[in-house]
Amino acid sequence: MKYAVVGCGAVGGYFGAKLSKAGNEVHFLLRSDYEFVKEHGLQVNSCNGDFHLNDIPVYNTTSLMPTVDVVIVGLKTINNHKLSTLLPPLIGKKTIVLLIQNGLGVEEDVQQMFPTVQLVAGLAFICSAKTKPGVVDHQCYGSINLGNYSCTDKERYEQLLNDFRNAEIPTNDVEYHEARWRKAVWNMPFNGMTVAMNTQTNHLLAVPQMRQVIRNQMLEVIHAAWACGIKTIGEDYADQMIQFTLDMVPYSPSMKLDFDFHRKMEIEYLYTRPIKIAREHGFTMPRLEMLEAQLRLLEQ
Amino acid sequence: MKYAVVGCGAVGGYFGAKLSKAGNEVHFLLRSDYEFVKEHGLQVNSCNGDFHLNDIPVYNTTSLMPTVDVVIVGLKTINNHKLSTLLPPLIGKKTIVLLIQNGLGVEEDVQQMFPTVQLVAGLAFICSAKTKPGVVDHQCYGSINLGNYSCTDKERYEQLLNDFRNAEIPTNDVEYHEARWRKAVWNMPFNGMTVAMNTQTNHLLAVPQMRQVIRNQMLEVIHAAWACGIKTIGEDYADQMIQFTLDMVPYSPSMKLDFDFHRKMEIEYLYTRPIKIAREHGFTMPRLEMLEAQLRLLEQ
Repeated sequence: MKYAVVGCGAVGGYFGAKLSKAGNEVHFLLRSDYEFVKEHGLQVNSCNGDFHLNDIPVYNTTSLMPTVDVVIVGLKTINNHKLSTLLPPLIGKKTIVLLIQNGLGVEEDVQQMFPTVQLVAGLAFICSAKTKPGVVDHQCYGSINLGNYSCTDKERYEQLLNDFRNAEIPTNDVEYHEARWRKAVWNMPFNGMTVAMNTQTNHLLAVPQMRQVIRNQMLEVIHAAWACGIKTIGEDYADQMIQFTLDMVPYSPSMKLDFDFHRKMEIEYLYTRPIKIAREHGFTMPRLEMLEAQLRLLEQ
Repeated sequence: MKYAVVGCGAVGGYFGAKLSKAGNEVHFLLRSDYEFVKEHGLQVNSCNGDFHLNDIPVYNTTSLMPTVDVVIVGLKTINNHKLSTLLPPLIGKKTIVLLIQNGLGVEEDVQQMFPTVQLVAGLAFICSAKTKPGVVDHQCYGSINLGNYSCTDKERYEQLLNDFRNAEIPTNDVEYHEARWRKAVWNMPFNGMTVAMNTQTNHLLAVPQMRQVIRNQMLEVIHAAWACGIKTIGEDYADQMIQFTLDMVPYSPSMKLDFDFHRKMEIEYLYTRPIKIAREHGFTMPRLEMLEAQLRLLEQ
């Protein structure tokens, strides 16, 4: 299958490069480092072995790119309004758009823009960063969960899974709704609270009252998922996530990095939308509403 | 009646000075500015007219002070453990201890230290500051609500009210439990949130989501009061307090000042105790528990 990567940052860049290295035809849309990559290629410094891609097809506008079978969207959700102009040149009748993005409600909004496109959600578990033009630093992890949102072409979806696995990307096929909510169980407490308290995950969990609040926020997400009909996430998942975080190195989630580098935070899809979706199902999230309000104040 | 002031800061110093000026016998316990006041007297710069007190009885230890009819405690609650050694020389059989302090649970704890003493709660509505040794700056307001906690000597309690009124201090006699909870409706949201967000009251209320959270926190306090049997605070009191705050100048509550000047914050009586009291009555306060956790983290 033919691939395009829109949003060639730490995440989109990594997965696109892995697919390209494995022999797939991958077209890259670049912005700030277009000239650099065109001349020098794309470098991936990875915990699993460095590699370099030369002579890859790169573009600075999608209007010059071919129609593809799969578009990998690695943009931050704050840029999703740009998809309505970015995507049309890439989309054919059977194109899959894979959204490797954070939060809830992303697929709903993109589907409204493109009612007939086949959407798949990608939930990446990876520590990577793009620190210089044309260089992706991949520190650890690197798996992805794919959740089918509206792809009716099962063969093509299977092919997508296979292409990722053949590119040595550990890839799971997961239930879409459950996967998005399950990721929110970790994302919603830690992304915002590290920003509000200007600290890292380990310092939050070191204060007993705060650890209790984080756990209660996780339960809010789990109970919101229940209210939305997703009954497969147990309350014990909160304790698992806290233990998982205690075992991690001190960590700054993506929103904390955005805040530190004065980039716009993904408050909309990480907080506002899940809170709204839960409320539409009769469930309120008081602690996460409060955190959202604190983030809204801080973004000003 | 004979008075003693323990904790002669912006609040205790002001009310003690007013009583002294009106002709009452008032004994002042001083700490850092004992030598200065002994030599130069106590100056009150007030929006209602400046005045100076010379030759007032000042002490640097309560062991040299007389037994009095009323002890005015103006300490921060973080110092209340010192009362067990500070108060005994001042207390006679019928002594009233007036606690002009913030929070809930203060009287319960002091009563445990001194089971037979007659306690009265004082809720001050005053903007004042002690900026230099021997000088109280009184900017505005200046009234006090007295709530009888355990004073059985009604005549003496009436005398206390009269002494305050004769000293030109606007003084209301209010129901103790309702008064403490009513003050918490304003205190709990604004003291902590200005610290957590490092801002002032007006900036909190300027963000719609935050104004909603503040209102919901106020409702949490009102509903906690209901759970504790105090049914006389209506939900409309939250809207009144928000309007009252909108009409105020941009304001830093006492906890914000403590935080800014690296003083210990009164988290215990302003948050931990009311949350505990409410829970003992079957009511949880999720938003204020979260704020307490944030303050506990910040105090470290």
